[in-house]
Amino acid sequence: MTSPLRLGIAGLGTVGAGVVKIVRQKAELLSARSGRPIAVVAVSARNRDKDRGVSLTSYAWEDDPVTLATRDDVDVFVELMGGADGSAKAATEAALDAGKDVVTANKAMLAHHGQALAERAEANGAILRFEAAVAGGIPVIKALTEALAGNDITRVMGVMNGTCNYILTRMEGAGLSYAEAFEEADALGYLEADPELDVGGIDAAHKLALLSSIAYGTQVAFDAVELEGIGKVSIDDIRQAADMGFKIKLLGVCRMTGRGLEQRMAPCLVPEGSPLGQLDGGTNMVVIEGDQVGQIVMRGAGAGEGPTASAVMGDVMDLARGFRVSTFGQAASSLTPAVPAKTATPASFYLRMALADRPGALAKVATALGESGISIDRMRQYGHQSDAAPVLIVTHKTTRSALDQAIAAMERTGVVQAAPVALRIERV
Amino acid sequence: MTSPLRLGIAGLGTVGAGVVKIVRQKAELLSARSGRPIAVVAVSARNRDKDRGVSLTSYAWEDDPVTLATRDDVDVFVELMGGADGSAKAATEAALDAGKDVVTANKAMLAHHGQALAERAEANGAILRFEAAVAGGIPVIKALTEALAGNDITRVMGVMNGTCNYILTRMEGAGLSYAEAFEEADALGYLEADPELDVGGIDAAHKLALLSSIAYGTQVAFDAVELEGIGKVSIDDIRQAADMGFKIKLLGVCRMTGRGLEQRMAPCLVPEGSPLGQLDGGTNMVVIEGDQVGQIVMRGAGAGEGPTASAVMGDVMDLARGFRVSTFGQAASSLTPAVPAKTATPASFYLRMALADRPGALAKVATALGESGISIDRMRQYGHQSDAAPVLIVTHKTTRSALDQAIAAMERTGVVQAAPVALRIERV
Repeated sequence: MTSPLRLGIAGLGTVGAGVVKIVRQKAELLSARSGRPIAVVAVSARNRDKDRGVSLTSYAWEDDPVTLATRDDVDVFVELMGGADGSAKAATEAALDAGKDVVTANKAMLAHHGQALAERAEANGAILRFEAAVAGGIPVIKALTEALAGNDITRVMGVMNGTCNYILTRMEGAGLSYAEAFEEADALGYLEADPELDVGGIDAAHKLALLSSIAYGTQVAFDAVELEGIGKVSIDDIRQAADMGFKIKLLGVCRMTGRGLEQRMAPCLVPEGSPLGQLDGGTNMVVIEGDQVGQIVMRGAGAGEGPTASAVMGDVMDLARGFRVSTFGQAASSLTPAVPAKTATPASFYLRMALADRPGALAKVATALGESGISIDRMRQYGHQSDAAPVLIVTHKTTRSALDQAIAAMERTGVVQAAPVALRIERV
Repeated sequence: MTSPLRLGIAGLGTVGAGVVKIVRQKAELLSARSGRPIAVVAVSARNRDKDRGVSLTSYAWEDDPVTLATRDDVDVFVELMGGADGSAKAATEAALDAGKDVVTANKAMLAHHGQALAERAEANGAILRFEAAVAGGIPVIKALTEALAGNDITRVMGVMNGTCNYILTRMEGAGLSYAEAFEEADALGYLEADPELDVGGIDAAHKLALLSSIAYGTQVAFDAVELEGIGKVSIDDIRQAADMGFKIKLLGVCRMTGRGLEQRMAPCLVPEGSPLGQLDGGTNMVVIEGDQVGQIVMRGAGAGEGPTASAVMGDVMDLARGFRVSTFGQAASSLTPAVPAKTATPASFYLRMALADRPGALAKVATALGESGISIDRMRQYGHQSDAAPVLIVTHKTTRSALDQAIAAMERTGVVQAAPVALRIERV
């Protein structure tokens, strides 16, 4: 019998408690699979007395996560407190400095400090793993870092915030307004304390930045993610996109181009028949494209006790089996600074506007598009009672800057009422 | 710079040539990711002179794969010859006996000799990996063995033979008969030299047996897979299943029950709106369900040069990074003999029959079902010109043995013409 792998767990919310339960209830299975016992030796949380549905009496208690992280009897520090800075970061740094491996679910910390933490791990011969930080139970970090390591990654896409997908799905399925669907998600407890983390796309953008780093060997560049939340998506857009055969998703996309790294988290149209288009409710999906493998689609629960604890345990089991892979899949010192692409890859766009009901109005819109070099793929004008006609246009491939130029030109003609809505159509 | 990982590749078909290309063309990327150079040092194939679209002149040539496998300068033997026995097995055994790690895409060899080879690897301190053997580029072995190692696996399902899925999709989409779709697949070169490997479900059953072993810690038990090919699926079944909201897929299912291990590869009905139901053409899909993670769905190319070479390289990169995991995810000596379940988990069934057009006929069918304890979920009788009415029944959950009893009773009454078709409906 080899020596046990000893865990110190900081943060005993649902995920932390879930990890403790797995270690307690599956001791034999874990040991058979990893070849050594897995044991919790110490835990830490803000409130010692809370009932977490699992007995903690056999573990040492530390009030201070930094003390926990550096205990002599801890081999792996499991960081499940959350937060980009503060205790989570301090304890993670302390663990790495003490040469301890770290498993974390903390996307915000890694999105903001990933490069520094990866360097710190490397300097101390420690391993830092974070499968649970991206897309919950879906093993996307492992797939990208390990399974697809023989590929040049051509694109990574993902619906990685279940709350946003729930809201968009409810708007579409039940005809709710954004505000109504938001209220419903809130009542169900789906929203973060700061809802902007969800609906503003920030949480999903954290995850995207981590995937970009692995895919392209670049230093995590969260600030370079082009970010747009779902707050401006209207029920009209959802209905009219559906009428054209599309669904609207908060979609993260990263790709390396000759112009630099593109990272975008924004509402996009995807074909309703595609795997991404068919993804309803709180489920997550990540699509990885490589020059060898083609397209791999992975779908599963993006949050919750079981799925997130499963991902944490996947990392723990790798460490128990002696697997030591660099944080972002290659030496931290070899990661290059990300050069953000100044212009995005051309795409088709969905354009919705309210057009003044007078002769020549449509001609002016068409002229504005034409003069910006944009050709029209499909156009629909809907019947209307008011003095403005709803008009939908799907363009052929163009750049966002050409489109913005065309929209500005339309607005100058005075035939469009209010600002047209433009959403990117992502080819999937 | 650490020492290179030196590959000896036996078998230079599309996959072997694909691996050579990746190693040659991505040297810098592979070395950045794994921390050491990856090099091909020697190759072997039946025909030395064939043009494989890649230069082999810088590699030693061995006519005998066993000699290749045991060369002093080979660290990893990459077996891409195929075949359950013969050279592939001899060379794999020789490599393991020499303490060399082996990466293979050979599902037949592992399905038949997996336990013996795993024991042999273990006895020699060697590693045997086979991501490419199951579902091509989809990293399902890695997901099941590593990422989900903290789960009790509750079920694994998969559409893992692209040729069968192509045939069924063409029957459905183009209204082809089985024979016509088979001819088309043959003309496109999709079929194995022995087509029964594809349409008989054998190839897919090989893969399923490997997944079962990892999922349940059992010794590979290919002979215990309940096997039924797609040859009896008719266009009528495809149309009438569609009318009830289902698609027919050659679906592999394994689950551990109180009665033993269930492994089944057979045509099944799945809801048309489910990910499995929406899987068209030659694509593969594997669904893994765990008690913690819930349901993970993985989709991608199941065959072809790039996807399969990608999977081979994933294993090679793991070895380059020093990852040493047991063949089936735990020590070979700890794998238990599989005890096959004698009876299958109850399910709903689809039952199609031609019913004699005379008074009381349907009553006799209903009575036969009722007397076997089977209740009817949905029933449709279709209009007809002949003297037999097409009747479709979807049952509530029942056992296959109760259903067979009911079918025998129906046949005794003489009201059903020809043998009714019964297909399992897999809840997904």
